[in-house]
Amino acid sequence: MKSMNNKITSLFNIKYPIISGGMVWCSGWRLASAVSNAGGLGLIGSGSMRPELLREHIQKCRQATSKPFGVNVPLIYKYADEMMQIIIDEKVKVVFTSAGSPKKWTSKLKEHGIKVAHVVSSTKFAIKCEEAGVDAVVAEGFEAGGHNGREETTTMVLIPQVRKAISIPLIAAGGIASGESMLAAFSLGAEGVQVGTRFALSKESSASEEFKNFCINLSEGDTILSLKQLAPTRLVKNDFYSIIEEAENEGACTEKIREILGSGRARIGMFEGDLVQGELEIGQISSFIREISSSEMILNQMVKEYNQKFKEITLLEM
Amino acid sequence: MKSMNNKITSLFNIKYPIISGGMVWCSGWRLASAVSNAGGLGLIGSGSMRPELLREHIQKCRQATSKPFGVNVPLIYKYADEMMQIIIDEKVKVVFTSAGSPKKWTSKLKEHGIKVAHVVSSTKFAIKCEEAGVDAVVAEGFEAGGHNGREETTTMVLIPQVRKAISIPLIAAGGIASGESMLAAFSLGAEGVQVGTRFALSKESSASEEFKNFCINLSEGDTILSLKQLAPTRLVKNDFYSIIEEAENEGACTEKIREILGSGRARIGMFEGDLVQGELEIGQISSFIREISSSEMILNQMVKEYNQKFKEITLLEM
Repeated sequence: MKSMNNKITSLFNIKYPIISGGMVWCSGWRLASAVSNAGGLGLIGSGSMRPELLREHIQKCRQATSKPFGVNVPLIYKYADEMMQIIIDEKVKVVFTSAGSPKKWTSKLKEHGIKVAHVVSSTKFAIKCEEAGVDAVVAEGFEAGGHNGREETTTMVLIPQVRKAISIPLIAAGGIASGESMLAAFSLGAEGVQVGTRFALSKESSASEEFKNFCINLSEGDTILSLKQLAPTRLVKNDFYSIIEEAENEGACTEKIREILGSGRARIGMFEGDLVQGELEIGQISSFIREISSSEMILNQMVKEYNQKFKEITLLEM
Repeated sequence: MKSMNNKITSLFNIKYPIISGGMVWCSGWRLASAVSNAGGLGLIGSGSMRPELLREHIQKCRQATSKPFGVNVPLIYKYADEMMQIIIDEKVKVVFTSAGSPKKWTSKLKEHGIKVAHVVSSTKFAIKCEEAGVDAVVAEGFEAGGHNGREETTTMVLIPQVRKAISIPLIAAGGIASGESMLAAFSLGAEGVQVGTRFALSKESSASEEFKNFCINLSEGDTILSLKQLAPTRLVKNDFYSIIEEAENEGACTEKIREILGSGRARIGMFEGDLVQGELEIGQISSFIREISSSEMILNQMVKEYNQKFKEITLLEM
């Protein structure tokens, strides 16, 4: 039993095939640099930033680590084009795109020597990613926090299907917060994992302490895939959610739901710590996370757990 | 790397730690005996039978195999008590209970030397199972077909939490149809797997050919967790589902939904093959299954895939 080259560590020039998700209100330069310094790939989440703030985060991240890091850009975000220009100007090495067509930016980014991964929630879009020339696909299951697919396909079901359909490197996301679940993802055919929830609740996450402390006390069933009329989003069943749920049960139209949602709900909840009125995006696996650890500890623990579980498992007698 | 004793194979005295789910309209004596003959544990699904029909299936199963097999009994079923008496009279060795309290039958069955497993969809109920003295817990995720938990916890998220909470043998269910996903389940802490969808679509399943052929052509997103007001059930989004969905969107009460559902919907769909008016219960992983194989081939393939994938995976460099 020896350790071998891994496609994801080779692609991004990192030590461990573990990527921290680029999460709104969580993934600033502190989290990204901490993850990269500890041997993973840290991503800055641009989806909650204005363009000039992203530039600041990129520059601070580079000061805080000499290791590779990346930026996640949701392509539907109104500032996406400006974000990309800043990323190119600032010579960021890795971009993860999501929520849009991988055709739009992949070739332009690659012309600048940038490695590109795109996030999908279905095999159909994973195939489109490969056709668009991305370097890796992130396939994310129903259990993941935040924006999510309409098909509701879980990580256990999605990864083997994507693996069968594409030959480029595959990163699994959704429900992965331990070395055991990383080993499960590898068993299903992934070569790397993107971990969101666990890092959202880490010491270096920019989320408010109120949000983090609240989330490490959640139980199974406390999150739900909501806002299905707008864009399916996994969030905590708090008072804000109850208002949305009630409106939906009364048959409210999309416009009405949008009006209730208003703007800045995720900022209010996750960044400002209003647990009642805010939108609290987090994954199902939050019910498994009982402490706020440093990113370095998370990475080391995951690698240790992976190797330990791998040694415990045995062949089946045939 | 050698093969070791497995708690599930030891418990049930079987060769492979693979159990075929006791599924309504699918799991008769043909499927159960075929799975047991091939080295797994076949279950007869009593949930779609009258008591005397169960007796007939038990007797035929015993004629068809000398290997251990079991019966699944949903405890909310109106005939549950009569089923248990038949099981005891017929000296069945294994019972899987579901949809009810594990306290009700476990000790009585164990007095008769019967091994008992109970199916749960949450850690809370897994703990109750251990307290009730069951021999093993089946933890089933959101992706599973048919009746399902209200928490919507996926297999990837559920298994590690149940594993942490109980020390008795653990069987994972939901989304498992290949050796790779069996290895994933073992990585998450399970010692066995209960496979539903793949065996529902096997040659020996009692389901209609129409249903089987339809299901091996489903795509990702073609099943949904529906009937949440009554009892959450994963089924295919066919015309019958559309009527339910429309009623729910119009704010129909539970009584109204029950009225639309009527009786015998699953029989009409799965057993009689009415793909339009019937209720078609099947798991998300159906989109991964493209052929109707024999149970023996399924078992052999799963074991082979498990061992092959296990040999491919490597340790991580620390």
